Amino acid sequence: MGGRGVLRLLNMPMSYLRKNIETMAGYTPGEQPGPDDRVVKLNTNENPYPPSPRVMEALRQIPPDRLRRYPDPMANKIRDLIADLFGLRRDNILCGNGSDELLTLVVRAFVGQGERLAYPTPTYSLYPVLAEIQGAETVEIPTLEDFTLPIGALKRADARAMILCNPNAPTGVFVEPKVVGDLAAKFKGVLVVDEAYVDFAPANCMRLAAERPNVLVLRTLSKSYSLAGLRFGYAVGPADLISGLAKVKDSYNVDAVAIELAAAAIQDQAWMRANVEKIRSERGRLAARLTALGFAVTPSESNFLLARPPSAALGAGAGGDAEGWYERLKARGILVRYWNVPRLADKLRITVGMPAENDALLAAIKAF
Amino acid sequence: MGGRGVLRLLNMPMSYLRKNIETMAGYTPGEQPGPDDRVVKLNTNENPYPPSPRVMEALRQIPPDRLRRYPDPMANKIRDLIADLFGLRRDNILCGNGSDELLTLVVRAFVGQGERLAYPTPTYSLYPVLAEIQGAETVEIPTLEDFTLPIGALKRADARAMILCNPNAPTGVFVEPKVVGDLAAKFKGVLVVDEAYVDFAPANCMRLAAERPNVLVLRTLSKSYSLAGLRFGYAVGPADLISGLAKVKDSYNVDAVAIELAAAAIQDQAWMRANVEKIRSERGRLAARLTALGFAVTPSESNFLLARPPSAALGAGAGGDAEGWYERLKARGILVRYWNVPRLADKLRITVGMPAENDALLAAIKAF
Repeated sequence: MGGRGVLRLLNMPMSYLRKNIETMAGYTPGEQPGPDDRVVKLNTNENPYPPSPRVMEALRQIPPDRLRRYPDPMANKIRDLIADLFGLRRDNILCGNGSDELLTLVVRAFVGQGERLAYPTPTYSLYPVLAEIQGAETVEIPTLEDFTLPIGALKRADARAMILCNPNAPTGVFVEPKVVGDLAAKFKGVLVVDEAYVDFAPANCMRLAAERPNVLVLRTLSKSYSLAGLRFGYAVGPADLISGLAKVKDSYNVDAVAIELAAAAIQDQAWMRANVEKIRSERGRLAARLTALGFAVTPSESNFLLARPPSAALGAGAGGDAEGWYERLKARGILVRYWNVPRLADKLRITVGMPAENDALLAAIKAF
Repeated sequence: MGGRGVLRLLNMPMSYLRKNIETMAGYTPGEQPGPDDRVVKLNTNENPYPPSPRVMEALRQIPPDRLRRYPDPMANKIRDLIADLFGLRRDNILCGNGSDELLTLVVRAFVGQGERLAYPTPTYSLYPVLAEIQGAETVEIPTLEDFTLPIGALKRADARAMILCNPNAPTGVFVEPKVVGDLAAKFKGVLVVDEAYVDFAPANCMRLAAERPNVLVLRTLSKSYSLAGLRFGYAVGPADLISGLAKVKDSYNVDAVAIELAAAAIQDQAWMRANVEKIRSERGRLAARLTALGFAVTPSESNFLLARPPSAALGAGAGGDAEGWYERLKARGILVRYWNVPRLADKLRITVGMPAENDALLAAIKAF
């Protein structure tokens, strides 16, 4: 309380917040236009296709009593479905309020105040925010020029946990499971593979989560299952790590509606796969057209493209004119994502939309 | 990494978990029977009446696009409804995934590792768990013999934050807002008033949250609004404290379905009030009958009763035979809550159910 007394004497406002919380900026989510705004929304990597009709049916059938009573704290119904899907056991799985919650739990369970969280950069900008909230240090390891992994440096990283987003956001770059396995064997802490986008990729690290003592895989229904509004994700890994995460979660972290709807979605793999195939096909077409229009497109195994616009054509400065492109597209009702940070400030991240949405984007680009 | 090396040399299993997480027990929620189990469920303080028909209507009307897209990160639609309800502004309100999430955010925002969280005891057993997860210390201040507050000791508590559950769980004891206001004026940290049960009480501390720089009030829709399955709660307080909490929350902590359903529930105050009145009336009747049967019932302003069974009749030991009563009731399909901890081990916590449920409980007690 001494510090506050001094602040009072100095006539400065005191803060009830922890210092790291007071000074931090927090995470900035992508723009969310209102439900009635007519925009082509290619900025937050949502799936352009609707969720499975089975999900909507499950929604209509929820009885009042399901809302009135507390949900199953562990959502065991879904743990069993996921265990079946991957040939695992219930205790290898933890359900979360979106994979964002699982990322929060990972930091709270494995990385103490003053300890270190590692990740290659650039990546999902939430990771450093989670470390900052915890009062933890970050070990940021830059990817190579083409955004591939500096695997030697990652293996040597001295940290309690490492998060590897694979395919990575916002680059779309995918690392083969074999490489991740080699990393897991060498890295001394917990290796968390954030597979939010993995259904759009050719392989995944689920076997590592089943076999390695220090690998957790995180999944979400937000992207491939078209359920960003539902907030449902799950973690897969060794039972002792999963039970540690469970201790840290809120008692009833997944609500009764999410349990029913996620169960319905997971039981309709065919719907998810069909939408993923459409998006992968469009991804290829969009990348080719953007390249033809002078964009430099990073090879992507996700549902978005990181693309550097042809700045010369518009006489932009040294950093390229990506921000200008972002603004001009926005003025035409097309939202993409832009970050004014090193290595990304000359690029746009474009979610792969439906063919008509992608065509609208391409037409707008041609018009400039 | 030195510690792990030593563990390896000693051939002991190393842990990836933080030490405080590894050793802690975690919070134990009350039993949740399956949806088809026929039990009289008086153990987790759910409302026996269904949620508002408007909530069910809102559920049926959710379009696929609402599930497909990310929700509003701040759930502003509901913040505005709540602001209107209490004559406050949007920035005085934060929405959460149940008030449990808001309690987690409070500890993460205000209480650092090694710092102190205070609360009177006995109370909601989640509070020490949240401190333990954070690596924080607890200052536990015992209530008086009749479970009323040791107000002087609370005022002097040296802690970053204090949580006051009012009405308290599991005692049901209510403290007048004036007393809480005096405490807030003296206490040096943030005073968090957990008003989960306040709709069943004669007054509340919302004005303190509007006027004091260090008071936060937490509310939930789980009890009075019959929406325990939905997971929706909100915090009310000074804008700077609310924005600090917002920095710590997950980006999309409240899902799109919860936003629509909570909005519908809040807009039907009459439904909530009518159910609350029925429960208050039953609370009086149940307390009187239990007293007539020899139970010592703590005066309650919540939707449950803390009651000491007449142990002598069954020849129980010094601690009374509350656990025996719990077991016998359970064998008859009636679930109540029992804790084998100091000051509670001789008592049962009984949720006020519908008249027929309360009658079933009373009949079972008479039968013993």
